[in-house]
Amino acid sequence: MKITVDDVEDYSIGAALLGTGGGGDPYIGSLLLSESLSKGGPLTLQQADDLPDDALLLVSAMIGAPTVMMEKLPSGDEAIASVRALESYLGQKAYGILAAEIGGLNALLPLVVGSTLNLPVIDGDGMGRAFPQLQMVTYSIEGNPSTPLTLTDEFGNTVLINTGDDETAEKFARSTVVAMGASALMACYPMTGAQVKASILRGTLTVALGIGRAIRQARQADEPPVHALLEHLAELDFSTSARLLFEGKIVDLFRETTAGFAVGTIKLDALDGGPDRMEIKFQNENLIALRNGEVCAIVPDLICIVDQETAAPITTEGLRYGQRVSVLGIAAPAELRTEKALKVVGPACFGLEQPFVPLESAHL
Amino acid sequence: MKITVDDVEDYSIGAALLGTGGGGDPYIGSLLLSESLSKGGPLTLQQADDLPDDALLLVSAMIGAPTVMMEKLPSGDEAIASVRALESYLGQKAYGILAAEIGGLNALLPLVVGSTLNLPVIDGDGMGRAFPQLQMVTYSIEGNPSTPLTLTDEFGNTVLINTGDDETAEKFARSTVVAMGASALMACYPMTGAQVKASILRGTLTVALGIGRAIRQARQADEPPVHALLEHLAELDFSTSARLLFEGKIVDLFRETTAGFAVGTIKLDALDGGPDRMEIKFQNENLIALRNGEVCAIVPDLICIVDQETAAPITTEGLRYGQRVSVLGIAAPAELRTEKALKVVGPACFGLEQPFVPLESAHL
Repeated sequence: MKITVDDVEDYSIGAALLGTGGGGDPYIGSLLLSESLSKGGPLTLQQADDLPDDALLLVSAMIGAPTVMMEKLPSGDEAIASVRALESYLGQKAYGILAAEIGGLNALLPLVVGSTLNLPVIDGDGMGRAFPQLQMVTYSIEGNPSTPLTLTDEFGNTVLINTGDDETAEKFARSTVVAMGASALMACYPMTGAQVKASILRGTLTVALGIGRAIRQARQADEPPVHALLEHLAELDFSTSARLLFEGKIVDLFRETTAGFAVGTIKLDALDGGPDRMEIKFQNENLIALRNGEVCAIVPDLICIVDQETAAPITTEGLRYGQRVSVLGIAAPAELRTEKALKVVGPACFGLEQPFVPLESAHL
Repeated sequence: MKITVDDVEDYSIGAALLGTGGGGDPYIGSLLLSESLSKGGPLTLQQADDLPDDALLLVSAMIGAPTVMMEKLPSGDEAIASVRALESYLGQKAYGILAAEIGGLNALLPLVVGSTLNLPVIDGDGMGRAFPQLQMVTYSIEGNPSTPLTLTDEFGNTVLINTGDDETAEKFARSTVVAMGASALMACYPMTGAQVKASILRGTLTVALGIGRAIRQARQADEPPVHALLEHLAELDFSTSARLLFEGKIVDLFRETTAGFAVGTIKLDALDGGPDRMEIKFQNENLIALRNGEVCAIVPDLICIVDQETAAPITTEGLRYGQRVSVLGIAAPAELRTEKALKVVGPACFGLEQPFVPLESAHL
């Protein structure tokens, strides 16, 4: 399968939705990707099952606070530099590029790198959404170390991290990112084709593309795009359940950038004028949605906020007082809901006291 | 020339004096060094001028807050690991080991590494004293980059830093050190023999050994050791001037650990009961000595505080209210007093507003 310039906008919208509010606005990435596809021609999307077992695959990603990323635009060169530095350390060229997360900017960046280096990008990721930390990926959950890992900044400075565990790698990387000015480019999780096949969430790049396409086609056909989006999601293997959780107006918004994260809470009043209220808490990504105080969706399930009219996904940094929004809940892929996975991406990992409740059995 | 177990105590005392209050108490290092010399036999001290021009030399050093180093004892293995990691990155084995600073713990550590790896240690260093930052060495002043640089912690985690300038390397290293628990082991300034010859301060390891020996011999001969120390310093090529600046009692002491540094001020009343007062400010190392408000010694010249009776050097973390001390001023080597060097190690680099005044022309 090929990705062309014509796919960039649809894919970006799908990635923004799956970002569940985080991962950084894909807009910057879509500009970079359009430019590199225009120069280099279509990009090959390779299915994980077609990978040679001994091929070397690397994850390419941005790390830092989304609010800072928006102000410190990456050129794409830093991403290439981090991949080259890791290849050089490993003494081996990469066969292809992997996405860490299908949500937000980091869904776009691997395509920019693959297109520039003329390498295939694997159709899948390690989150099925966006998460704020390095070790919150199925690659790590299945036992693949994040290091050796390289970080590069816009001045060509490089830091290579090698640790015994991914939490330490995350800690070292985060402190380096702060020293680099709160955002940096990263190459990490060097894996063989066999390791990728045993840990990747398959087909999620195609899922993002399909979501964006469904929204666009509904808009073009003058059909309600939120409704079309829900219908499209219901047909996907990606998720066992997708629901409209709330339609409301933002009546309260608290947001701050602390320790490299965008943290906050929004409150919504029901659009129909009824007594229902919703509260959503986020740390880069939306973490928990409470309806009248009861949990109706909680991480790792996806909580996506979209414009109520256009179904345009709204990132946490794009939230504004008075916005009229639809809140969607999408069941996370089964691989993120296992006991093993919940230890890494479950509510407790984000400081939430509520236990995980699958979307389909939560209060609605 | 060989260094044996019998030299360790003298050498440590000399290193403590040249630490000018900083660089960490050499005591931990002396234990490590005694152990490794007992196991491995005498260590070769090689003169810089005897180095092959194409030999690879590496600096081995500890980085972090001295007050934390005292609580988190290094095993020596971390230092070996950082050297091995840098060798591995460079694809070349080290010919010998260099000291960054002859002051404090970092004067001992290269000997531990050299002894353990059975490699010669070069008789010289990059500071002729101790300084708080990575780029404050003649190696850097003469244009040799500090990176590639490796940092290791007690868990075997490794970080490799590659930057375009040494100030950025210092910033990245410092933030990694904080993430590693405020102290770490480092290998850096990879240089050829030719580069070492063009930038090292020669013979300073021998100077440290001689200082410790002079103090011990005076004590054994029941002569006043501070007097003997000053006489010994006057005979050395190392410094053009060494003076007794003050004899006093510590009547005020302010010290705090901030951003990885031990920062503070002490005030002294004259021991002879006269009206003279001295104030000394430090950031890990003693930076400025003011007598009745007038500068009588300022960085990069050495300000050394010793016990008034025994001439035992006192580090900033060893300062106590009521101590009776002698304050010595020692002119820094000429290489640290050039215009080029003062931009890196002069008073302004430590936030002092006073200009550099050579010890020999300062108010006494």
